[in-house]
Amino acid sequence: MLTLDFHPVGNHFLQIPGPSPVPDRILRALSLPTIDHRGPEFGALGLKLTQGIRRIFKTQHPVIIYPSSGTGAWEAALVNVLSPGDHVLIYETGQFAVLWARLAKRLSLVPEILEWQGQDTALPEAPGWRHGVQAAQIGERLAKDKEHRIKAVCVVHSETSTGVVSDIAAVRKAMDAAKHPALLMVDSISGLASADYRHDEWGVDVTISGSQKGLMLPPGLGFNALSPRAIDASNRSTLPKSYWAWDEFIEMNKSGYFPYTPNTNLLYGLHEALEMIEAEGLDTIFARHKRWSAAVRSAVAAWGLPVQCADAALHSPVLTGVIVPNGVDADTLRRTILQRFDLSLGAGLGKLKGRTFRIGHLGNSNDLTLLATLAGCEMGLSLAGVKLGGSGVNTAMEYFAGHPAEVKAA
Amino acid sequence: MLTLDFHPVGNHFLQIPGPSPVPDRILRALSLPTIDHRGPEFGALGLKLTQGIRRIFKTQHPVIIYPSSGTGAWEAALVNVLSPGDHVLIYETGQFAVLWARLAKRLSLVPEILEWQGQDTALPEAPGWRHGVQAAQIGERLAKDKEHRIKAVCVVHSETSTGVVSDIAAVRKAMDAAKHPALLMVDSISGLASADYRHDEWGVDVTISGSQKGLMLPPGLGFNALSPRAIDASNRSTLPKSYWAWDEFIEMNKSGYFPYTPNTNLLYGLHEALEMIEAEGLDTIFARHKRWSAAVRSAVAAWGLPVQCADAALHSPVLTGVIVPNGVDADTLRRTILQRFDLSLGAGLGKLKGRTFRIGHLGNSNDLTLLATLAGCEMGLSLAGVKLGGSGVNTAMEYFAGHPAEVKAA
Amino acid sequence: MLTLDFHPVGNHFLQIPGPSPVPDRILRALSLPTIDHRGPEFGALGLKLTQGIRRIFKTQHPVIIYPSSGTGAWEAALVNVLSPGDHVLIYETGQFAVLWARLAKRLSLVPEILEWQGQDTALPEAPGWRHGVQAAQIGERLAKDKEHRIKAVCVVHSETSTGVVSDIAAVRKAMDAAKHPALLMVDSISGLASADYRHDEWGVDVTISGSQKGLMLPPGLGFNALSPRAIDASNRSTLPKSYWAWDEFIEMNKSGYFPYTPNTNLLYGLHEALEMIEAEGLDTIFARHKRWSAAVRSAVAAWGLPVQCADAALHSPVLTGVIVPNGVDADTLRRTILQRFDLSLGAGLGKLKGRTFRIGHLGNSNDLTLLATLAGCEMGLSLAGVKLGGSGVNTAMEYFAGHPAEVKAA
Amino acid sequence: MLTLDFHPVGNHFLQIPGPSPVPDRILRALSLPTIDHRGPEFGALGLKLTQGIRRIFKTQHPVIIYPSSGTGAWEAALVNVLSPGDHVLIYETGQFAVLWARLAKRLSLVPEILEWQGQDTALPEAPGWRHGVQAAQIGERLAKDKEHRIKAVCVVHSETSTGVVSDIAAVRKAMDAAKHPALLMVDSISGLASADYRHDEWGVDVTISGSQKGLMLPPGLGFNALSPRAIDASNRSTLPKSYWAWDEFIEMNKSGYFPYTPNTNLLYGLHEALEMIEAEGLDTIFARHKRWSAAVRSAVAAWGLPVQCADAALHSPVLTGVIVPNGVDADTLRRTILQRFDLSLGAGLGKLKGRTFRIGHLGNSNDLTLLATLAGCEMGLSLAGVKLGGSGVNTAMEYFAGHPAEVKAA
Repeated sequence: MLTLDFHPVGNHFLQIPGPSPVPDRILRALSLPTIDHRGPEFGALGLKLTQGIRRIFKTQHPVIIYPSSGTGAWEAALVNVLSPGDHVLIYETGQFAVLWARLAKRLSLVPEILEWQGQDTALPEAPGWRHGVQAAQIGERLAKDKEHRIKAVCVVHSETSTGVVSDIAAVRKAMDAAKHPALLMVDSISGLASADYRHDEWGVDVTISGSQKGLMLPPGLGFNALSPRAIDASNRSTLPKSYWAWDEFIEMNKSGYFPYTPNTNLLYGLHEALEMIEAEGLDTIFARHKRWSAAVRSAVAAWGLPVQCADAALHSPVLTGVIVPNGVDADTLRRTILQRFDLSLGAGLGKLKGRTFRIGHLGNSNDLTLLATLAGCEMGLSLAGVKLGGSGVNTAMEYFAGHPAEVKAA
Repeated sequence: MLTLDFHPVGNHFLQIPGPSPVPDRILRALSLPTIDHRGPEFGALGLKLTQGIRRIFKTQHPVIIYPSSGTGAWEAALVNVLSPGDHVLIYETGQFAVLWARLAKRLSLVPEILEWQGQDTALPEAPGWRHGVQAAQIGERLAKDKEHRIKAVCVVHSETSTGVVSDIAAVRKAMDAAKHPALLMVDSISGLASADYRHDEWGVDVTISGSQKGLMLPPGLGFNALSPRAIDASNRSTLPKSYWAWDEFIEMNKSGYFPYTPNTNLLYGLHEALEMIEAEGLDTIFARHKRWSAAVRSAVAAWGLPVQCADAALHSPVLTGVIVPNGVDADTLRRTILQRFDLSLGAGLGKLKGRTFRIGHLGNSNDLTLLATLAGCEMGLSLAGVKLGGSGVNTAMEYFAGHPAEVKAA
Repeated sequence: MLTLDFHPVGNHFLQIPGPSPVPDRILRALSLPTIDHRGPEFGALGLKLTQGIRRIFKTQHPVIIYPSSGTGAWEAALVNVLSPGDHVLIYETGQFAVLWARLAKRLSLVPEILEWQGQDTALPEAPGWRHGVQAAQIGERLAKDKEHRIKAVCVVHSETSTGVVSDIAAVRKAMDAAKHPALLMVDSISGLASADYRHDEWGVDVTISGSQKGLMLPPGLGFNALSPRAIDASNRSTLPKSYWAWDEFIEMNKSGYFPYTPNTNLLYGLHEALEMIEAEGLDTIFARHKRWSAAVRSAVAAWGLPVQCADAALHSPVLTGVIVPNGVDADTLRRTILQRFDLSLGAGLGKLKGRTFRIGHLGNSNDLTLLATLAGCEMGLSLAGVKLGGSGVNTAMEYFAGHPAEVKAA
Repeated sequence: MLTLDFHPVGNHFLQIPGPSPVPDRILRALSLPTIDHRGPEFGALGLKLTQGIRRIFKTQHPVIIYPSSGTGAWEAALVNVLSPGDHVLIYETGQFAVLWARLAKRLSLVPEILEWQGQDTALPEAPGWRHGVQAAQIGERLAKDKEHRIKAVCVVHSETSTGVVSDIAAVRKAMDAAKHPALLMVDSISGLASADYRHDEWGVDVTISGSQKGLMLPPGLGFNALSPRAIDASNRSTLPKSYWAWDEFIEMNKSGYFPYTPNTNLLYGLHEALEMIEAEGLDTIFARHKRWSAAVRSAVAAWGLPVQCADAALHSPVLTGVIVPNGVDADTLRRTILQRFDLSLGAGLGKLKGRTFRIGHLGNSNDLTLLATLAGCEMGLSLAGVKLGGSGVNTAMEYFAGHPAEVKAA
């Protein structure tokens, strides 16, 4: 890579909402020599990982680990339990819900989209992208589906494109109240291991996740956490599947192995990540991200810019979407910040292209990293001629100084 | 990984026919910090890789790089060009052809199997697994398929389960002679970058490969090299596809990006691998593997054991299958060798379980590594009570001493 | 190290004035397999390094590379050219001059100390530690040394304990004016490769340096750059020497080898560092550090705290010493900052213990790293109850935003 | 290093008697980010290391860890306890004793050399270099030294230039019998952590060692293990010293710190090495090296070449010196083996240049590594036209197959 390494001096600030900055411990674990994925050492590793990952999802049931991106894990969730022509009810909270619907259509499913009903002056292009899933709407739609054509309800737990977290337990409650048999599928790609998540307790049937966010790994691993109902449905599904098929994974994982060659070196990283996460403790990790999130939001407020998430209770602990003033192109702003300050920020996605930017506060970060990030944003906004209400960096410094974290060993 | 590292001292000898030993340069490249896969640095990397990989396949046409195993690349090849109920003609040269047929069936295709017709006293269980593809048989079958129900011919270039390489150009010639429009799909997972391979010149429509063999990377990248006819067919195919769909890859790769989050850190490794391969030169690499192969076969001959490949012209440069005497369980033998000498060998697969073992001679190896490997085998065979005809190690030493390689810088 | 890694999450901010943060490229180079230091590959490496390092010192003459700390390189400079009882004239600009004098005494030399004559209300404990070498004082002392008992003049180019850079060319001029034959020895441990330095042009006889500052390596390499006069003097010196003896180094380095086992893996790092430095260019590097220094000083000024360096022309580009108000203990402050914000700052050394802290702005840093550092300082000062004149972070942000650097590839 | 990496493919075989092959775990530990050597994390590391290293030397007393080569540790031992003109009695068992004497002379000490008295037809150039220290000779000489002008007896425990281990306890016994107050200094650079060594029990006053042999680290750390008598003597010694001075180390190490900047990243490696060594257990490690040594000697015997060590009881567990037939140049042989088989062997040193080569069997090795090494030697000898008595590789294979090691986790 040396010849490709055209970064200026100093470490790059990767503050997009994933891939998140990867800790040195994990990067070095990736570089351990590859072993035989059919040998006994691998079996021990596989058993440890397939058990350990369940504790992160808070489930007693199998979690499938794919050599794939998170998009692959979405596809896996659909093809394992559904059949051509099945309806899936997708609640659009942002771009990833949109992409999921597109994916469903390509797989010969029939997506139905629900979205928040309302106006928004700050973001007229996409008012629904400032809110979470409205469980009541889902309940109403399901109640009308007397023939049970809807086979799955698909919601995004932590919308990476907006910075809004949805109440998954409420969705399950609405589905139960509607007495509808659809499966509940949840994308917690950017939520897992950063925001509170409880696969079993919340009654989720398939949780989809990936390696490159809260797990602090590079991209390359996709996850499906299952429920007994989901496994049962997979026996009746007729969508063609092989690579994604759960059955062989469930069988082979029992002895720590995989049905085809796994992503061995990324699994080394997963092993290291699990050790780090369990040493710190999930509750400490969740609290840490909430604290970061509060500081970043205080900075955005000080700038006088609207945070994309309009519902105070649903602010994402892992990222903050920021709406830029009309007349400012957020992508030009991001480009300036990258070129001048070696800081990568997330773009406004889909219909919000140029209208927002997103600050990731997850992965291998700390108070100073985030202050540096806010400083980069603040300088970039100034250079773009945005008149700021005040110094977000100063506000965040006050927040951090005034709110010490209980720091535990990683 | 430290707590999992229960290897004895010294480096493990990973002499299975892939994953192959990964060079230190590549292992370290894997551990570079993850970057934004939507940023300009990634775009430059992506362009370099998608162009560079074409030179390895010897093609002018797009090569898709998936975050997947090689099995995923198989699936991708099928779902992109075929439709439910399509017939695929698979020539069974070993276990990977068998697995490919099983995969096709799971995807609602109709596999037809051809195999070598003949007897074999040394390996009566699977006589066909000692030979290469018989192009004439394929030609005959296609000639009979007047309705063109067969949409693809699937053959394995380098059968990882047997150590036999097939003549791909001959298959194309037979197809052309039969004037049959089926697409030619070739699995060169263990052949690419170790054995001579020419996607364009040989008229292959889809070549399937993976990262963990001749490219000397860990597993995690799957490849589809395409032809214009294959791309054309992909527009008519009706099998559902999204993750594997070529269209978005072809489009986005033009600017160096990928339709969904790629396997960034493995791509760092691919970059390093391409640099190493091009510095050494493909012809030097092919010659190197042939030399290794000749030495290993001379050792097996000295032991008095049959090499699995029965056709002298088709010996694989990347691995050698060895048939063990009746009464010896090859898996017990391999276990002893692993426990006593920290050497991993490949198992006999499928119907050859326990009947053969396979020696990989690819990846980050050299003369001494292979002599050590042969020494491990020879000691293991002695411990298993096999009466050997002579010292394979001595024979291989004579071969290596007598046949100097032209060594070029890596 | 995993079990010792009790850092909180996120990367530690190592902003002491060395060891400086080491770039990833160099860290990975350190982990390449050790080679035979008597083999041909090492010879090629050794030749490249011993030639390349001369360009950093700007000398045509030999540079000795020791497996040692910078302290060892000091000792080497003295024992190679001096004899027991020789006088050395040391100009005290800070703690490292003091330590050098102590070292000289332990080696049976007679150090004479000169220092700045004057008062200082902000730092009454050590007024001289706010200024550079006064060449005139040296000239006067030498002029009086008619018997030439003083054999060496020892000055520190970049005083790591104070943040003051001295004018070395002026010292040489004063020595020449006094027509005194003493050798000129310069400690540029923290100056080399960060601040302008010219061994030959400035007429230095021995320059002492180390690996862990501007070269961006871990500690473990010490350097002596020589002049012909120094080499000549080494033939007459009677202090016992063996490990440090130049003669065998000069001889063996001609073929790229070393008289005893060198620090091979750190030499890999040096190789990488030289590649990075030469790719960026020394002038760009010097300008980069000056820009950082200006921003940090602007922040300290905004806080209303005195910068330790009292002479505007001599501000160090690599570190800034900050004097804390009476009643504040700088070490308590640093401890708070470390515990709360995972930021390491330099302590006030020697007689300034608790009176100052030092901010390193060298090594693998960038604008955002330094803003984060200033934020950590600013929050720590607030927590310590120091009433600040304003936000240093804001001032530095304005500076950085207003003064774009010409960024070149590393 | 990438551009310097002109190795052919495959891992280099570094089978010199040190620097030894470094395990991957240690190489990766070297690449952890450098920390503040004055901060609390370093203090914890320092305490752990300075305590842990005592268990390797089997001492209750301080062990000094220098940022230096082993040669520096020799110099340290001498300058700390001796005064100019002191006599040191050095028993010449090989080149390292010769170098030690030369070093002593450069430091203004008066070395007296004793050596084995006898003839040797196989190695007439250096008959004494095939034997260990003769304690009786030392006793006799000391008995005659009525004035106690001899202040130190210097012996090499494991002669890296010959492959002979000396009986240190016997030397102490002879010194005691002579009632002579000289200090006993022992070089166990290549013995420590590979061959049984007991600093306290054997009554050694100063043990000298280095990092790059049994500790499996790269070069760069030197060690002095002390006795109370040695510490006492250091208070009276008048040789000038500063870098090497024990006093400040002893004082500062109490809190885990060092008097000057230590070699931080190599200390990370030392931490990892201590973890590995203690996990395996010193007794297992010693047995492992003895087993390797026996196999290698059996191979040399099969070739019909004389092992350099003439005393069966004193064969080194860490290396084997091999005498080549007259008319063969061992250095030409080694060059061929390096070029053809990428295997580095040790040269005959000093007066044995070209007459012997040395096989290292230490560090990160295993049975197969050593068989590969022997294969490289055997092919090289054949290519050099040496008529061998038989296949050393076959003999060693029989030995290894017949003598299973008790393998413990590293």
